[in-house]
Amino acid sequence: VNLILLDASALDARGHARLHGDQARHVREVLGATVGQEIRIGVLDGPKGLGRIDRVDADHVELTCTLDDGAPPRPTVDLLLALPRPKVMRRLWAQLAALGVGRIVLTNAARVERNYFDTHVLSAECYRPLLVEGLQQAQDTHVPLVSIHRRFRVLIEDELDGLCPEGRRLVAHPGGDLPSIHGARAGGGQTLLAIGPEGGWDAFELGLLEAHGFTRVSMGARTLRTDTACVALLAALS
Amino acid sequence: VNLILLDASALDARGHARLHGDQARHVREVLGATVGQEIRIGVLDGPKGLGRIDRVDADHVELTCTLDDGAPPRPTVDLLLALPRPKVMRRLWAQLAALGVGRIVLTNAARVERNYFDTHVLSAECYRPLLVEGLQQAQDTHVPLVSIHRRFRVLIEDELDGLCPEGRRLVAHPGGDLPSIHGARAGGGQTLLAIGPEGGWDAFELGLLEAHGFTRVSMGARTLRTDTACVALLAALS
Repeated sequence: VNLILLDASALDARGHARLHGDQARHVREVLGATVGQEIRIGVLDGPKGLGRIDRVDADHVELTCTLDDGAPPRPTVDLLLALPRPKVMRRLWAQLAALGVGRIVLTNAARVERNYFDTHVLSAECYRPLLVEGLQQAQDTHVPLVSIHRRFRVLIEDELDGLCPEGRRLVAHPGGDLPSIHGARAGGGQTLLAIGPEGGWDAFELGLLEAHGFTRVSMGARTLRTDTACVALLAALS
Repeated sequence: VNLILLDASALDARGHARLHGDQARHVREVLGATVGQEIRIGVLDGPKGLGRIDRVDADHVELTCTLDDGAPPRPTVDLLLALPRPKVMRRLWAQLAALGVGRIVLTNAARVERNYFDTHVLSAECYRPLLVEGLQQAQDTHVPLVSIHRRFRVLIEDELDGLCPEGRRLVAHPGGDLPSIHGARAGGGQTLLAIGPEGGWDAFELGLLEAHGFTRVSMGARTLRTDTACVALLAALS
């Protein structure tokens, strides 16, 4: 943990905050913090800053926080991801937050198994702490927005423009004869990157994506597991 | 599994091979292969090719293999990695092989805990099947060469030139004021990429690396977990 993230509601008007549970223990035992010391803190979806430690006891750590003027810039990449199997999705949450993703849009696809949707890995109680863990690692405060869509066609035709109204859209595709994703790195603005299931998007899905503004970019000749592919492609873009 | 990898010793002079155990089961049950069908096969550290299925029974699958003329090109990136904790290292093996790494040089560093070396995750019995799993995913045949070094200074001063005699050397470093690793992508030849422990290399280690030909490149402003950082940096380079 390189940054302690707090809910805005945990700070009072004078910037006082009181940590308890795992966070208090982390500050006390891992950071070895003592009264007077300053630690890096952040407000979820808000600014970062410093917290001066006022008091440490067995259960709590009390801080006075000084915050930056504004929140750090929002991530410029959003992800449209065909839902991988639960074990892989569980590993992805923290990594996606750490790499910096504004929005995570999870979708069904022909090659996604239906039972992947019946997992608690898709419940906010499960994924939110993992997202916060990734943000604390990467020192960011922006919690990715998450939405889950069981109907691919409805998502692409009716919902996606509302979720991701602006910017360019890319769909990563295997094969070496397409423009490399590295070439897509330049240019400001928001990018929505679509990554298919392990078996790939089918022809209907690719066609629908292209009809809705997605351009194909190559993800290279190697077939990667979804979690490796997500990290590799987001890194290549950012 | 997108490619079934065999030991060269499993093929006789006429290209016949006999799969058993997990591989036979995979071909039978996952690929649903039947007599006459062709599947993608590869020889470890050798060529890829096709195997025509001659016989399927409860325990075995027999193939006649036709191999390409030569092995696929060797990966052009080698990795010098400060040993991460065992749980992270376990997750990395298959991903490194899938991304394509010629050589994995694991080293001690000031911020590596000594007990990380006492794990069976560093035994070939543990990591070799994970490397092969990654190669089968990515359809490559080159098993990364692995060496483990408990003395950083001896490694850098006396051993590294023997392990990685040619090509450029980069050390990934946090911070936005260095040349980006994306800019290092151009240029052929071999690249040795050094990635430090979660807490970073210390000043002595950085100095020693630079004295032995390593140039600093930025790994971006975000602090990533070692496994995420490895995948992200290798993807940015390749």
